[in-house]
Amino acid sequence: MLIRAGYDIGFATEHPTPLLLMLSVHPSREADLREPQTMVFDPPVPYHQYHDGFGNVCTRVTAPAGGLRVRADFVVADTGLPDLHAPDARQMPVEDLPDEVLVFLLGSRYCETDRLSDMAWALFGDIEPGWARVQAIVDYAHERIRFSYAHARPTRTAFEGNDERIGVCRDFAHLAVTLCRCMNIPARYCTGYLGDIGVPPVDDPMDFSAWFDVYLGGQWYTFDARHNRPRIGRILMARGRDATDVAISTAFGQAILSKFDVTTYELPSD
Amino acid sequence: MLIRAGYDIGFATEHPTPLLLMLSVHPSREADLREPQTMVFDPPVPYHQYHDGFGNVCTRVTAPAGGLRVRADFVVADTGLPDLHAPDARQMPVEDLPDEVLVFLLGSRYCETDRLSDMAWALFGDIEPGWARVQAIVDYAHERIRFSYAHARPTRTAFEGNDERIGVCRDFAHLAVTLCRCMNIPARYCTGYLGDIGVPPVDDPMDFSAWFDVYLGGQWYTFDARHNRPRIGRILMARGRDATDVAISTAFGQAILSKFDVTTYELPSD
Amino acid sequence: MLIRAGYDIGFATEHPTPLLLMLSVHPSREADLREPQTMVFDPPVPYHQYHDGFGNVCTRVTAPAGGLRVRADFVVADTGLPDLHAPDARQMPVEDLPDEVLVFLLGSRYCETDRLSDMAWALFGDIEPGWARVQAIVDYAHERIRFSYAHARPTRTAFEGNDERIGVCRDFAHLAVTLCRCMNIPARYCTGYLGDIGVPPVDDPMDFSAWFDVYLGGQWYTFDARHNRPRIGRILMARGRDATDVAISTAFGQAILSKFDVTTYELPSD
Amino acid sequence: MLIRAGYDIGFATEHPTPLLLMLSVHPSREADLREPQTMVFDPPVPYHQYHDGFGNVCTRVTAPAGGLRVRADFVVADTGLPDLHAPDARQMPVEDLPDEVLVFLLGSRYCETDRLSDMAWALFGDIEPGWARVQAIVDYAHERIRFSYAHARPTRTAFEGNDERIGVCRDFAHLAVTLCRCMNIPARYCTGYLGDIGVPPVDDPMDFSAWFDVYLGGQWYTFDARHNRPRIGRILMARGRDATDVAISTAFGQAILSKFDVTTYELPSD
Repeated sequence: MLIRAGYDIGFATEHPTPLLLMLSVHPSREADLREPQTMVFDPPVPYHQYHDGFGNVCTRVTAPAGGLRVRADFVVADTGLPDLHAPDARQMPVEDLPDEVLVFLLGSRYCETDRLSDMAWALFGDIEPGWARVQAIVDYAHERIRFSYAHARPTRTAFEGNDERIGVCRDFAHLAVTLCRCMNIPARYCTGYLGDIGVPPVDDPMDFSAWFDVYLGGQWYTFDARHNRPRIGRILMARGRDATDVAISTAFGQAILSKFDVTTYELPSD
Repeated sequence: MLIRAGYDIGFATEHPTPLLLMLSVHPSREADLREPQTMVFDPPVPYHQYHDGFGNVCTRVTAPAGGLRVRADFVVADTGLPDLHAPDARQMPVEDLPDEVLVFLLGSRYCETDRLSDMAWALFGDIEPGWARVQAIVDYAHERIRFSYAHARPTRTAFEGNDERIGVCRDFAHLAVTLCRCMNIPARYCTGYLGDIGVPPVDDPMDFSAWFDVYLGGQWYTFDARHNRPRIGRILMARGRDATDVAISTAFGQAILSKFDVTTYELPSD
Repeated sequence: MLIRAGYDIGFATEHPTPLLLMLSVHPSREADLREPQTMVFDPPVPYHQYHDGFGNVCTRVTAPAGGLRVRADFVVADTGLPDLHAPDARQMPVEDLPDEVLVFLLGSRYCETDRLSDMAWALFGDIEPGWARVQAIVDYAHERIRFSYAHARPTRTAFEGNDERIGVCRDFAHLAVTLCRCMNIPARYCTGYLGDIGVPPVDDPMDFSAWFDVYLGGQWYTFDARHNRPRIGRILMARGRDATDVAISTAFGQAILSKFDVTTYELPSD
Repeated sequence: MLIRAGYDIGFATEHPTPLLLMLSVHPSREADLREPQTMVFDPPVPYHQYHDGFGNVCTRVTAPAGGLRVRADFVVADTGLPDLHAPDARQMPVEDLPDEVLVFLLGSRYCETDRLSDMAWALFGDIEPGWARVQAIVDYAHERIRFSYAHARPTRTAFEGNDERIGVCRDFAHLAVTLCRCMNIPARYCTGYLGDIGVPPVDDPMDFSAWFDVYLGGQWYTFDARHNRPRIGRILMARGRDATDVAISTAFGQAILSKFDVTTYELPSD
């Protein structure tokens, strides 16, 4: 399956403002690109890219006074298969986890494991460890939070999302990630493209989506507490401990999002 | 100068409990070790070490049911010079910072940059960028928080510490780190040994200490919002985004700290 | 497309012998696994996995006296598309390359850039930089070396392969990688599965294959100097500076390869 | 002890030429800098720094047509203690080595472990593992190679150095590093400043020096096959698998070294 994806984003700025952008497809999907994801800046400005500690591609650029627009439009190949369903995937004892995944058991800005641990054990302590426990957590987050664009708030943490019972896809992901970590299941936050492939189209304007991975039985599996069903055509952009690490844009100064268009759709096969 | 340092720490456990320990001297000080920092476990148990993403040495061990004691005792060479005072160190524009330090501008579990940014700019926006601004932040945190072991709370964040005006050395560090990041000054949280070298001895039992580094003019400088004066004989153990990343011990299960002795003192020179 | 892949490898040892194995599918393909790549050891022995500096999954295990057998058998999803052909991909000036790729311009154990640089510039200096130049290098290596399993030699370098004009797939890759680096084109060595998908079946017993990536126009592209044509169904296991970094097995002591079966084939679609 | 150190290096170029410089003090010594190691370029040119996979500071700069000069001059604090002598340091079984050090057992461009392994075991197999074995290797390399600036050759490998019996400090280090790795002792190549502190002054113009570290009993120890005695005042710049990884300068094009002054001396204490 071929998927066309891209974005067209504008920043309004009064003064030159350094930006950190995470708008590139993740290196793990690089080999699937059938057209390059060239970033086009208007006005044209120099930029610099690097990989952060999670392996994500970060772009550094300074928006000139007056603003900056950035867009890309590319084609990526996909297996066309839904997220894996592996009900037999076992929870690994902490002592058997690889060193690298331990960081995904710790707390982070929006995932207060220290504050939600008691609740997590009360809710999920009796459920069979492994896939079933993760699914129970995802079910809980999916039910607990009511989706509402109107109630998005960038400072909302998992604890607050659980308390306020409202939020957007990042809040679903933060709550589920935090509860998994509390139960000693490594969980990492993901962001990327997710088109309406195989599901009824949604009316809202398209946006990037947030989901998460858990580490079970020696590998990472994808879960999505917002949609709570296997989906086709996720294109990963970045992953990290929480939304802090994978923010689409971080401005070091004032930069207003003046335009935000995301596109993702399956190309008709010939 | 030669410094003798070490610890003797006990964990009480009912069930076998995986522990993640950050008790080793940081690799940047390894070449200064004049006696090895061999960890002795009682009962003897197998353990495994690795470097985390910040370069810290992490030790993984499982405390058996009944508890575990770990100790070490070693000698480290030191220049005997106080923390550097560099009042001319300039604040670098964000666009000139090395890629690796950008992560130390972001928020983290105990450093809510998004919630303290307005206050930071109101307080320190008019102060000359660079060393003077960092010193002003350190002065603020030093004054703002009253030291009290009795009021230690592991979940306290920088925002909460600023609000409650009480805390321990980690709270001083978290507040200052957060305010520096708000002002676009990279700051990382540090933990290690700090003996009473060159200062009047303190009555409290010895503990590990927390301080922080800021990145100015192309290098990292040490600041200490708890003591607010240059000190001699810091022996770094670990550094990270905040206390989450450098916790002396993280238990995946119930483990009560049953013993906690830290020693650090200058060896008499012959 | 679904591909079934696996291996069954035996080591004969007289004494307990530590082994370092790179037999896992690369993390960039982990999300494509539809069945886990569980390693089964006979006799059952404890093992430990970690990621090396290139992101490859490494397995540490000690073969007991008498030997060790390891096997795995799994299913991986693939887009079914051939290696990308991008004749317009431009060569980037060295000064514009990302920091991370610079290491793939340096020499390494089997890639003596310092000894082949003059020849490379004499042969390829007049060819248009970018895709055409890489293709010319691949054509050269493909023609220069005659394939012969009988003449495999693990110590053969690119310089020696060019001189001896004989070798196996790793020698094709080393020569092309070295020449690309000489021309300031970052090149990394790859190893993995490559079945006979879309090509006439080969009589030889199946083996792992070696190919390489070059960095052009901001992304990595796959080339294969042994086959010199786009192929379908590569499953990457490991990549590095040369074969040293991605050896299927490195034994720290004597270990004779007593069995070596590799399988890769397309599963019939229903 | 305070040490003044610095360099003044010129490159003659006909065309603009990208350079990769490793002239900075290693991050593990950053905290010891009492004066910043600011790089001054003449003519002034923009430059960019990053950390490579070994943690070294790398500087990227493009020398304009006509050439480029770079200098620095700084003060670094040192403990004033000689390299550690630890005759009881044990050799660790390979299976107990930390994951991160395994790469320092593998071959590399100038360290052909595969070609020197038989010789190494014949020479050092009967010597007690650990410190004594490393010292025997260092003695061998120290005796085997005759120092001669006149016979420096950048492409000389350990195998060739052993065969030709002549070389400079890097050849001593490469030979000893390779033999240690053959005996399953992790060894890494180091480069940095080494003044005549505590030893009779040498007549030769000052140069950077090469030494190496071995991993014994859980930590790295410094050895120096060129001088074969503990020394005072090493200031590490970079370490890696061999000289490839830590070249003072790597030019991507023609750049002639037109000036090369290095200074290191102990500052008189007041």
